[in-house]
Amino acid sequence: MNMSDGRPAGVSPVSVTVDLVILTVRAGRLQALLIQRGKIPFKGDLALPGGYVRDGEGLDAAAARELFEETTIDAAHLHLEQLRTYGDPDRDPRGRVFTVAYLALGPNLPLPVAGTDAAEARWCPVDEALESDLAFDHGRILADGVERARAKLEYTTVAAAFCPEPFTVADLRHIYEVVWGAKLDPSNFHRKVTRAQDFLVPTGDHRLPDLGRPAALYRRGPATTLTPAILR
Amino acid sequence: MNMSDGRPAGVSPVSVTVDLVILTVRAGRLQALLIQRGKIPFKGDLALPGGYVRDGEGLDAAAARELFEETTIDAAHLHLEQLRTYGDPDRDPRGRVFTVAYLALGPNLPLPVAGTDAAEARWCPVDEALESDLAFDHGRILADGVERARAKLEYTTVAAAFCPEPFTVADLRHIYEVVWGAKLDPSNFHRKVTRAQDFLVPTGDHRLPDLGRPAALYRRGPATTLTPAILR
Repeated sequence: MNMSDGRPAGVSPVSVTVDLVILTVRAGRLQALLIQRGKIPFKGDLALPGGYVRDGEGLDAAAARELFEETTIDAAHLHLEQLRTYGDPDRDPRGRVFTVAYLALGPNLPLPVAGTDAAEARWCPVDEALESDLAFDHGRILADGVERARAKLEYTTVAAAFCPEPFTVADLRHIYEVVWGAKLDPSNFHRKVTRAQDFLVPTGDHRLPDLGRPAALYRRGPATTLTPAILR
Repeated sequence: MNMSDGRPAGVSPVSVTVDLVILTVRAGRLQALLIQRGKIPFKGDLALPGGYVRDGEGLDAAAARELFEETTIDAAHLHLEQLRTYGDPDRDPRGRVFTVAYLALGPNLPLPVAGTDAAEARWCPVDEALESDLAFDHGRILADGVERARAKLEYTTVAAAFCPEPFTVADLRHIYEVVWGAKLDPSNFHRKVTRAQDFLVPTGDHRLPDLGRPAALYRRGPATTLTPAILR
């Protein structure tokens, strides 16, 4: 197919990639999956996992494929949404490359298997990652992804995507506290999340803590929006 | 610059466009700016305004340029945000074209001047546009833009972008009622928006209605998030 049919002068062919901001809560910290680049440009630098969208492949499918290649996790098992597209003319030294960034949020995921483009992949605390020099404009993309996650905890039920099921209200509060970097009042939080419509579904089971009362166990409910919102 | 440097087999060069969902409230209805396509593909069909991102041009700049070309409106005078990127392999019969959709919200804008790609441009009520066959996947993009606008009225101050300044609380309520397609209780609405932090700034002036009390006039405040939210 001749791609030049509709393109006027001053419009050259380009490339499109997907990049993934994959976040989880591990060891009491919000962490992002980063790879060490195995080839030029930025060889040896830390970067977000990602790659070229293939011929005949949709964007969501490309994001899911890269997710699987980097983490061996099926996209169906976590929250995956488009974040934003970045297309500054100078963002890639190879030429004009637009990248469609995705945000993936999931429970403490197994350590990733290094893929073809990843010499090494690792979880990195987000605050440290944001202070290091990531390849391309990946620092800005990571910052946007973290801010999107923080904002969505206010008015959506997405925090539960970080929790392996079943989970307690204290498990869920731990996610909010880690992602927001702030302590929350336990009884206020308990009241808000258990009254929010279709956020949490009781399993009927309880977890026995080392001390104190048994804690009710929940799984994720069908609601996507959180009403009323829980504000930072 | 040789673009093939980083591209593996199975990844061909592509094109990137921007498309604009431009919404306003006119004559008591939510309306979108549509153009009648002047060339193939989909010649003669209604479509969202948009065009190719030029060499050396950023995405936001391309969106602002297309907005100006289609409406003669400066992007600085309305709310413009990235909506989502669409890249289904079959969405454009010319070949692989990814489009970065933008959402523009503004006060009742002057009728657009037909640009080079627009044989004719017009405001079209959104409910009628969504029932007609738009070119490409523009029906889906328009539906996503309208839903984004409706959702953002709940938890952001963006409704004020539809109001020419200065405006009354009744003007603002009219926007909410038209965009949501639902009547709101006037005194409840008045209480909520005037108590929301930094949403509305009183000008000190009043508008004299044909009958009834003078109505206080406001301009847009600095807040972007609406706290507490106003729910549909």
